[in-house]
Amino acid sequence: MAARVAEFQEFRSRMNKRILEIENRPIKRFFGVDTLTYEPGALDARTKEMLGLVASMVLRCDDCIAYHITQCKKEGITDPELYDAFSVALTVGGSIVIPHLRRAVAFLDELNTLPPP
Amino acid sequence: MAARVAEFQEFRSRMNKRILEIENRPIKRFFGVDTLTYEPGALDARTKEMLGLVASMVLRCDDCIAYHITQCKKEGITDPELYDAFSVALTVGGSIVIPHLRRAVAFLDELNTLPPP
Amino acid sequence: MAARVAEFQEFRSRMNKRILEIENRPIKRFFGVDTLTYEPGALDARTKEMLGLVASMVLRCDDCIAYHITQCKKEGITDPELYDAFSVALTVGGSIVIPHLRRAVAFLDELNTLPPP
Amino acid sequence: MAARVAEFQEFRSRMNKRILEIENRPIKRFFGVDTLTYEPGALDARTKEMLGLVASMVLRCDDCIAYHITQCKKEGITDPELYDAFSVALTVGGSIVIPHLRRAVAFLDELNTLPPP
Amino acid sequence: MAARVAEFQEFRSRMNKRILEIENRPIKRFFGVDTLTYEPGALDARTKEMLGLVASMVLRCDDCIAYHITQCKKEGITDPELYDAFSVALTVGGSIVIPHLRRAVAFLDELNTLPPP
Amino acid sequence: MAARVAEFQEFRSRMNKRILEIENRPIKRFFGVDTLTYEPGALDARTKEMLGLVASMVLRCDDCIAYHITQCKKEGITDPELYDAFSVALTVGGSIVIPHLRRAVAFLDELNTLPPP
Repeated sequence: MAARVAEFQEFRSRMNKRILEIENRPIKRFFGVDTLTYEPGALDARTKEMLGLVASMVLRCDDCIAYHITQCKKEGITDPELYDAFSVALTVGGSIVIPHLRRAVAFLDELNTLPPP
Repeated sequence: MAARVAEFQEFRSRMNKRILEIENRPIKRFFGVDTLTYEPGALDARTKEMLGLVASMVLRCDDCIAYHITQCKKEGITDPELYDAFSVALTVGGSIVIPHLRRAVAFLDELNTLPPP
Repeated sequence: MAARVAEFQEFRSRMNKRILEIENRPIKRFFGVDTLTYEPGALDARTKEMLGLVASMVLRCDDCIAYHITQCKKEGITDPELYDAFSVALTVGGSIVIPHLRRAVAFLDELNTLPPP
Repeated sequence: MAARVAEFQEFRSRMNKRILEIENRPIKRFFGVDTLTYEPGALDARTKEMLGLVASMVLRCDDCIAYHITQCKKEGITDPELYDAFSVALTVGGSIVIPHLRRAVAFLDELNTLPPP
Repeated sequence: MAARVAEFQEFRSRMNKRILEIENRPIKRFFGVDTLTYEPGALDARTKEMLGLVASMVLRCDDCIAYHITQCKKEGITDPELYDAFSVALTVGGSIVIPHLRRAVAFLDELNTLPPP
Repeated sequence: MAARVAEFQEFRSRMNKRILEIENRPIKRFFGVDTLTYEPGALDARTKEMLGLVASMVLRCDDCIAYHITQCKKEGITDPELYDAFSVALTVGGSIVIPHLRRAVAFLDELNTLPPP
């Protein structure tokens, strides 16, 4: 049952590495900005990760949702807090978000069966 | 060939049940509103399901499309009527809808090979 | 108060005429397909216009919403039927649709103050 | 200069009142869920409002952005915290968010010139 | 008639300046990446601006469309070439793009009445 | 490793054929417009395919991206040129595009291992 978590993380790592080998400055710098965005500033990393999660959910990107759920767990965000974040995404984004919510909860449930990293 | 229909319905049922076990009032109530929306009102259920189908198609959500196609068939909507609904979604949403149209037609064809429920 | 209806219709007519003067075959033919899509087929024009309305609403295009509301009224669709169509768009598309719903209801209210064409 | 804040709030209040007079249960109940979503739960109202803000920004709805900025200010969220929330929306949503960021900053600057409510 | 071009350019310049005064590193760096993206690389600036235009059009951002039309004209792209770019956006993005196409053509027509900068 | 390219092309061909057998004039004519759009006009096919690619990427449709990458390669567009097109899509569309960029690069890498058609 831990298949999706592992498969997602392996493909993501491998392809990010591949992309950063490409000689293209805007792409490289975009990845730099992406990393910088979630570093603590006026808001802490924990809040920023939840913002990234809800943004991913209303834009309906399963991989982005999976990534930010993983990061949120690392930041110590509890499941009830994640459900609250999901509820904001659901209300703002509408029922079209429901299939992504199903996959998000399935991913989170799977993540919760794994030993902590 | 009936694999996708069965797999989709099983995952959908299982995860909806799982989500409704979560103690989160906005999520629970959103699911209530979602059910209420398709009950007959000034418009009949048949028309509402077609509206839900076209909305799902222009927003490009394969699971939502599959769900509303299933509901439309239950309401007795014919295949030529579904194709007309697809054509509205295609014109409004553009060629970006075509991959979803391919999967919608494949899903409908598969559904048509199954015995009526 | 009838200002928005008149302004919208004048700009739309003038620019559609201007666009169709442009020598570009894909654009001209796209406009042809757009017209064809709403002609009666397996579904009647009335249903197709409601499908176009809900598609426009979840994609959040105020001008498209205004256009399809006007067409729906011409097809004899009642206000309670339009509200039902709005409710499907709201549930599928989420609270992000609400500002467009506000403008849709304001447009419909204004249209209802005008003498029939 | 306080024109946009006042105009936005007046139209929003007037049309919300108008919509809630409509006899349509799914619409009424959707508005109820929308209100419920931002009430404190596992997450406090402050965090939920920021989640609503970023969701609105990546979905590029100026009215929703203006509304959530107003709510965030009421919750005591500082401008640097809002800028951090904007930065997450910008990175996730891309340069297409920039025109909305311009209007968001203009709205916030205007709001900051008003006496507290 | 040159009102929209001037108004758009004034607000854009003023607010970009305002945003870059904000002490927020991810926002500043995002603006840097945005500028870098359109500099000549394997593709020339002319092609990149057209790519930016079509991306803006299918994402339906009037301000982004106006900006990239202005840049395309500076790169010497002809009106028939712009119409071809518009046609790709229309086909990919669907009839929901039409209101933006109307405003794009109106903006371009207005730009063509102005003396070259 | 050439599995995804072959699977994508087989399903696409089979379902396009199936869809064109359907007796629905707007759908048939939409497919005609879609083909016409990429024929050389004021812009050559090469530029139009890149425009289609970037439009597909910001709208985040993996199948459309795969299709246009294949067409771009047929038009002789080099990998560094494709990376530049990807960079425009990434900057305009934001980090939500990254999962699609990963799959696009994986698809392109796989395509590059195949003998020319």
